[in-house]
Amino acid sequence: MSLTEAILSGDSRAMARAMTLIENETSSAREILKALFHRTGRALVVGITGSPGSGKSTLVDSLTQEYRSQGKKVGIIAVDPTSPFSGGAIMADRVRMSRHYNDEGVFIRSMATRGHLGGLARTTEKMIAVLDGGGYEIILVETVGVGQDEVEIVRVADVCLVVLVPGMGDDMQAFKAGIMEIGDIFVINKADQPLVEKVQRELETALSMAARRDGWTPAIVRTIATQGQGFRGLVQQVDLFNQFRRGSLDWGARRRQIAEDNLRELLKERLLEKAIQQNGVWDKLQAASVAVTERKIDPYSAIDAIIEGL
Amino acid sequence: MSLTEAILSGDSRAMARAMTLIENETSSAREILKALFHRTGRALVVGITGSPGSGKSTLVDSLTQEYRSQGKKVGIIAVDPTSPFSGGAIMADRVRMSRHYNDEGVFIRSMATRGHLGGLARTTEKMIAVLDGGGYEIILVETVGVGQDEVEIVRVADVCLVVLVPGMGDDMQAFKAGIMEIGDIFVINKADQPLVEKVQRELETALSMAARRDGWTPAIVRTIATQGQGFRGLVQQVDLFNQFRRGSLDWGARRRQIAEDNLRELLKERLLEKAIQQNGVWDKLQAASVAVTERKIDPYSAIDAIIEGL
Repeated sequence: MSLTEAILSGDSRAMARAMTLIENETSSAREILKALFHRTGRALVVGITGSPGSGKSTLVDSLTQEYRSQGKKVGIIAVDPTSPFSGGAIMADRVRMSRHYNDEGVFIRSMATRGHLGGLARTTEKMIAVLDGGGYEIILVETVGVGQDEVEIVRVADVCLVVLVPGMGDDMQAFKAGIMEIGDIFVINKADQPLVEKVQRELETALSMAARRDGWTPAIVRTIATQGQGFRGLVQQVDLFNQFRRGSLDWGARRRQIAEDNLRELLKERLLEKAIQQNGVWDKLQAASVAVTERKIDPYSAIDAIIEGL
Repeated sequence: MSLTEAILSGDSRAMARAMTLIENETSSAREILKALFHRTGRALVVGITGSPGSGKSTLVDSLTQEYRSQGKKVGIIAVDPTSPFSGGAIMADRVRMSRHYNDEGVFIRSMATRGHLGGLARTTEKMIAVLDGGGYEIILVETVGVGQDEVEIVRVADVCLVVLVPGMGDDMQAFKAGIMEIGDIFVINKADQPLVEKVQRELETALSMAARRDGWTPAIVRTIATQGQGFRGLVQQVDLFNQFRRGSLDWGARRRQIAEDNLRELLKERLLEKAIQQNGVWDKLQAASVAVTERKIDPYSAIDAIIEGL
């Protein structure tokens, strides 16, 4: 049985191996993705983001539990905003801590952002394709932070959950600036804590000030992840938005734009590969790197010279 | 006088115009950067990052004040982690709020991350080149958030400051995971607040656990940005690290790697441009985008077909 066939049969070890091939950017990864393509596009991808400390990991655990009780297979991709100097060790702990670690209907993968500079969304999409091909119906993509990662998540997720907690105080302002507009559903977690009404009011005010172009009014759902409370309602809201989204005009245009962006990136990479395979181009690139570092030539002129030689 | 000459003479309107050309990715931007190259590489680039609410904007203001008192010209690039749907309006307020708004020795530019997906570091480098060419000796790059942006900052900054505040509580853990290792200097701001000793201890413990490959022991500096306290000491630490860094072995290798990455990106973009200028390639790319969206063909096969036709 080929690796692709094993993935399609739902073999989790085959999926893990394919994901490693993708992370290492091997050419066999491309073949696998090609073969999987016609069997993907069925999963529902839910992006989950929010400030550190908002209890996202526990929330993902409880959301997984809810989908599992509906008999659905759940894939989890945890994106680790690790620095370029360390590895992806923090999220590995995260994987071990999950209470679904031994559940065969749950596949958890942590992904360090290291080595994916500028390509995080694309690598995540490839991971999603593997889970999708393996028959995982719900795919949760969780990231830490309130930066570029979260903006990229919008591109890969069908539904985006933004998690808040009571008592955010001054952070609310920065929070609003960062990721307010990417949320299709806002989750107030730790809803048994004081100040829950305050954060709800602030959120409602912020949401009322900016009407979405697609006409959707983002729902606000309260949860207590540590007790598994509020997750039936959250899943209902996810379904509701998913139905709305599939009917909206924006959706088709957005999918087409994502496809075009991906094709452009693929084309660029292939063109670079082809160019570097030509005689002497690799050496020229290395020599140019040294010359630019020593400020003997500017990068634009260096590339002009390489292009002319092709 | 050409735009490039105006920039080299320190004309701030010319600099602003060049930056807009860069943001819009015009071909004239490339010509300007090419002409500026031999006059750049002199500025000290200081990256400043940390959680929302840590008072980074005020800190940047006070740091600017300190450098101004030394007679140095200061450029500030404020990176705005705005969502793909809004503009970059938040940081525009930030610019107006600066007390250096009317100081000709200070140039402030806000930059929305929108449209720079995966290219934030490169666009920032180009902005830095303009400030550098314009004779700004100190360039402060400030970002919000604890995600991918901050990791990218490491690549463009000579010195990276990470800002903390007392009373971070649970956030400390996530904080450590995210950006602990990118700090050359840690700044405990709002150092007049209670719990300052606690955050210092936690920081020291965290730092003692991970020795840096380059042998540098990150300094911890306390500031009260609202009162301008601690900034002479902070500037001294920045100078100290800068000297250390220039003498370290890693430094040369890192600069070479950055140059090579930039050259590869430039080469990719130029190759794509050249390919798309060929007859029919643009149309093929559009048709492929539709076909992939409709799942009639996988992206890899679509690109194979385009590549073969070149």
